[in-house]
This record gives sequence, structure tokens and C-alpha cells, in this order.
Amino acid sequence: MSYFRENIERMVGYVPGEQPTDPKVVKLNTNENPYPPSERVLATLASVNAEQLRRYPDPTAVMFRETAANVLGFSPEQIICGNGSDELLNIATRAFVGPQGLMAYPVPTYSLYRTLAHIEDAGFVEIPFGPDWSLPEELYSTGAKLTLLCNPNAPSGTMIETDEVSHLAKKLDGVLIMDEAYVDFADNNCLELVDKHKNVLILRTLSKGYSLAGLRFGYGIGNRKLIAGLNKVKDSYNCDALSVLLATEAISDQEVMRENARKVRDERERLSERLQAVGFEVPESQANFLLARMPAGCALTAKQLYKQLKERDVCVRYMEQTHLADCVRITVGRPEQNETLLQMMRQVGVEI
Amino acid sequence: MSYFRENIERMVGYVPGEQPTDPKVVKLNTNENPYPPSERVLATLASVNAEQLRRYPDPTAVMFRETAANVLGFSPEQIICGNGSDELLNIATRAFVGPQGLMAYPVPTYSLYRTLAHIEDAGFVEIPFGPDWSLPEELYSTGAKLTLLCNPNAPSGTMIETDEVSHLAKKLDGVLIMDEAYVDFADNNCLELVDKHKNVLILRTLSKGYSLAGLRFGYGIGNRKLIAGLNKVKDSYNCDALSVLLATEAISDQEVMRENARKVRDERERLSERLQAVGFEVPESQANFLLARMPAGCALTAKQLYKQLKERDVCVRYMEQTHLADCVRITVGRPEQNETLLQMMRQVGVEI
Repeated sequence: MSYFRENIERMVGYVPGEQPTDPKVVKLNTNENPYPPSERVLATLASVNAEQLRRYPDPTAVMFRETAANVLGFSPEQIICGNGSDELLNIATRAFVGPQGLMAYPVPTYSLYRTLAHIEDAGFVEIPFGPDWSLPEELYSTGAKLTLLCNPNAPSGTMIETDEVSHLAKKLDGVLIMDEAYVDFADNNCLELVDKHKNVLILRTLSKGYSLAGLRFGYGIGNRKLIAGLNKVKDSYNCDALSVLLATEAISDQEVMRENARKVRDERERLSERLQAVGFEVPESQANFLLARMPAGCALTAKQLYKQLKERDVCVRYMEQTHLADCVRITVGRPEQNETLLQMMRQVGVEI
Repeated sequence: MSYFRENIERMVGYVPGEQPTDPKVVKLNTNENPYPPSERVLATLASVNAEQLRRYPDPTAVMFRETAANVLGFSPEQIICGNGSDELLNIATRAFVGPQGLMAYPVPTYSLYRTLAHIEDAGFVEIPFGPDWSLPEELYSTGAKLTLLCNPNAPSGTMIETDEVSHLAKKLDGVLIMDEAYVDFADNNCLELVDKHKNVLILRTLSKGYSLAGLRFGYGIGNRKLIAGLNKVKDSYNCDALSVLLATEAISDQEVMRENARKVRDERERLSERLQAVGFEVPESQANFLLARMPAGCALTAKQLYKQLKERDVCVRYMEQTHLADCVRITVGRPEQNETLLQMMRQVGVEI
């Protein structure tokens, strides 16, 4: 006999990527930004006093919402803050879907979506991406209460054009979440859809573009009515005082974020070319990682490559999913980290 | 037409206490500890570097769990960390209850419990405390999947004895959560019940005893099976790197926590006596606040008292609930803050 609900008893929890603590490991497995956050964030951290720790934080993070609204061209009432964008995904499944509801999303994608459906005991429809990671037609007509589109998509790094997303939003009866976790590394984004479609919610994070994965801070942008409803579901003090303070400083410093993103993008192109030159199949990435399908005829499987790199202190991501079993996902690191990766690949027998 | 589930559309969100930012306000409304956290916490904060912000945190906060296990006499596998104990309450309703399930708790109590039932679309049974805030008999036989006992209770500050709680745990078919948010100010706690009953989960927070409300860090203690199941429901990176680090330092410094708690307790007794001397009815509190029922024959209502104190920059908590409409809840402050409170009460016509 179990104290847990059946759906919880049955499910396997989401397995996050490894977090090796040894500083000598070249960590290219969980899509952290390889560059440090803005110096202004660290200066603000140094100014924190005991009183800010002692007292409850502002429940709705007004400081961040006002700053982000200003930076992005929205009103603060169109923004909700979360303990990472994961929490906002979590809140959205509870607010829009529920156990009677249906979620839909193209796959392969961020595997947390399925975990959230399991937790909520919701139905879910997983529709394979079309050729070249195009948007599958079937996504238009699932009847889902919540459709999720990770854009740029993880783990492919590919992106659906804004016009096409707009078309999708218009056709859907339910809510469309654009998970823009990686958008700071992309050419475009879907912000303009927020004021165009009342069912669009855009999720963002400070983990990637702003180099603050340790902070757990994300935010959502949508029309006021969507945001007001989501606020009812969130824990009242979901963002701690330090994260609100540091996230506000980080988003104020667009220049540093853009400069870091530019460096990552340059390096992404270089690394992609190098991998393709030896036969890896790499879709065009708009994110800070590459999905690399093993070269035809390579003596190693993707899993072997992952393991052998790991033994050499280079950590990439291997995902044991049907469609990705012959791929590794590689976070774009600093030039010297990427060089180490390529060198170790050579060492284990990949001809680079 | 709404995009939200009916239960969400219908519900009113939890309303947290006001968080006035003006430093001249004597803030006695949301039960913060009036003393600052351990100096060791601040020293650790000063040591944080960019790398700790850039990288993802440890998903299960091993550092904190090992330290807390050691301090409290458990194993790390018996502990789960949360973004405040509010998040753990949230996780528990999803893990144990669900829309088909029932929650039960004696009232008046922490009003978040009802909000969580609304969000989960769960049933809930609210049973009034017996005379002198005793445990109501009916709580033994609700058939609830989750029974919640805030102990010491908010907003009364009263406490149910461990033996009685043990008896309750034994009789219940479902899980019993002891919400021990205020236990650091109490004579006893229910930790011994964790190894005695496999359905007991104890929730704690660093917000009160450890003066870290701004940090959002709580933890739960239960048997390994309970903890393993709850881990499936929590967001993978639910605690940020800074909070794990600072919470670990805070719980290591039991001496400062105990010394602060001692001062609060002394002041609690003094303040309670002063209030009772002029006719307030104040149940014996084991927490860091007092529930004060207006003196019979007082010219002011509790709401008027709350408002007039607020105009004088003293903020206490007024709760517009049926059974508490003639009460205010007063956080025990530092001696000079409590003196200001009493002085302002005199000024608005309460004869002290």
C-alpha cells in the first residue's frame, strides 16, 4: 500500500544532467553559459545585507518586473517571475491543464514536459517534428489545453519562424507556451506575439543568456489576464530576495549578455563546422548547444563516445531516447574547452 | 471563455501579509525573526563567486541534507529541501492528494492549506480546534489522504503535545504533515515521530528560527520512501545555489539560532503579560507571535486597532476570518519594537 497517488507511484522522476563538481571537468552537458555573469551582478551581491535575508522578499518581484518590462517593452502586469522557468512550466500545467486535460508538444524536446504531465496526471500528445525539425501539421489540431513549443528547441537547437508560430497560436483553442530558454542565442524571438494573441505565454530564464543557472530565476510574459491567473497558482514567495535583486541587475545589463551571446554564437558556428567536417550530422542551431549525430561508419556508438569522453573529463549529454540514441548534445563552451573536446574526440578514435 | 481550469478561475489567490519597505515601520505582521541571521551566514555570502552563480546548483542539495541530518540525527535520505516549506506543502498536496483526494486540518490555521486544496481541486475538511485550541476528535476519522497540523499552530501559537500527535499518526490511514515552521521557539517538537510512524512528514523552515525569510529555504523530514516519492514531484533545481550554501551554514550554527529564540521567548512572555494585563485574551504561545483577542468592552474593534496602528507605522496582522475577526496577530519583536507597539496601542485608546 502506498501513500502516493497512483500516477506518482507509477512515474519515474525527471533526471537532470550530471553536475560534476570537479573543476577540471570540461562541462558541456547542461547548457550553462561558459562566460561569467555581468560584473554588476557580483557588485550587487556584495552589497546584500542581513536585513535583506531576514525579511520576506517582495511576493511579486516588482523590482524585476518593472525593469524587465522596460527592457522588453511590456507592462509589469504582463510579467510573472518564477523559481526558474521550470517552476513556470509547472504552474502552467496546473493552471491550464489538470488531470482531465491534454498537453501537446513536438518531440524530441525538453523531457521535463512529459514529467510535468505525469505529475499532473494529464494526458499528453507527442508529435514528432517533421523533416529538418519543421513544425508538424498535427500540432494544429490536437485539442490540447496547453501546447508547448521549445523555441529554439532542446535538444536540436532548431527554431520555428515567428510567422509560423503566430499562425499556430491563432489556430489553437488552448494556450501556447513558447519556451524561449535559449532565445538569447537566436536571431529572432516571439515577443511580438504576446500582444497579438491572448493565448500566448513566453517563458524565459536567466540561466543561459545571463549566466545565472545557479540563481534559479525565470519569467513569463503574456497578457494581463493570463498572468493574473498564473499568479493565483504560484507560491506567494516563490522568488527569494537575492535572486530578485541579482536578476534585476542582470537584465539591466543587456550589453554583457549580448557580448557573451555573440561569443557563444561565433564559437557555435566554428564547432559545428568542425564536427560536420568529420561526418557528424548537426542541425543548424540557434541555441548554445549542438545536437551531433554520429558520423556514418564511425566505430563508436554515441553512448560509447559519451562514456569515453567522460573518462577523459569531458562531459557531454547523452540521452537514451529512441530518436536520439545515436546523438550527443554538446554545450558550446569557451574556445579552449571546445578544443579540448575535439582533441579528446580524436583521442578516442573519432577522426577529426 | 477562460483558458484556466474551473477551480483556478473560481479561486481567489492566497494573500500574503503586507511587506512594507519603509524602514521606519515597526513590522510585526509576518513573523520574521527580529534578530539577524548568524554572522557565519553573512561571511559565507561574502565568499560566493561568479562560478557558483553560473552553474546549476546541486539538484538535491546534498550539502544541506548531510549537515541537517547530522544536526538532527537522521540520514540524508530522510530529508528533502524546498524553496521554502510552502513549496514542500505544495509538493505534498500534489503527491498525496490530487483532485480525487481529501485534505483535513484543524482551523483556524495557516490559510495556505485551503489555497493549496483549491489549486489542486482537492476536497478539504476543516475542523474547528476544541476548547483551548485542543486537537478535535473528528480529525482522527476524516479518511483524508493528507492531514495537516501546524504545530505550533499559526495564528494561535498553541501546541499539541507529541504523545497526542503520535496517537493521531497511528490512527490515520493517510499522511500526517506536522508543519513545524515555528518549532524553534517551542519547548518540544515531533522529530521522534519520524522513525516511529511511516506516515509522518515534518516540515521545517529557515525563515523563522534562522532569520532567513528572504532566502526561501525549507526542508522536510520523513522516512526514505516518503522522501523518495516527494523527490519525483519537486522541480529538479528547486533550491538555488546561494540558498543551499547559506542554509547549510545557518543550520550549522545552532548556538545563534537558540540564543535568538531565547530572546524572542523571553520577550514573548513579557509582551503576553502586558497584553493580558489590560484585558486581551492571549493563548499560551510556543511560537514567535501572539494571537490577541480584543479586551471585552474595548472601544475599538480589532480591525480598527490594526488600521490605527498602521497609521502610526506599527504593522500587525489582521485576518478577516469568522473566528478571528476580533483578534490581531502580533509578531514578537525586539524589546524596543514591542514597547513602541504598546505605546501606540495606548495612543489609540487601548488602556495599557
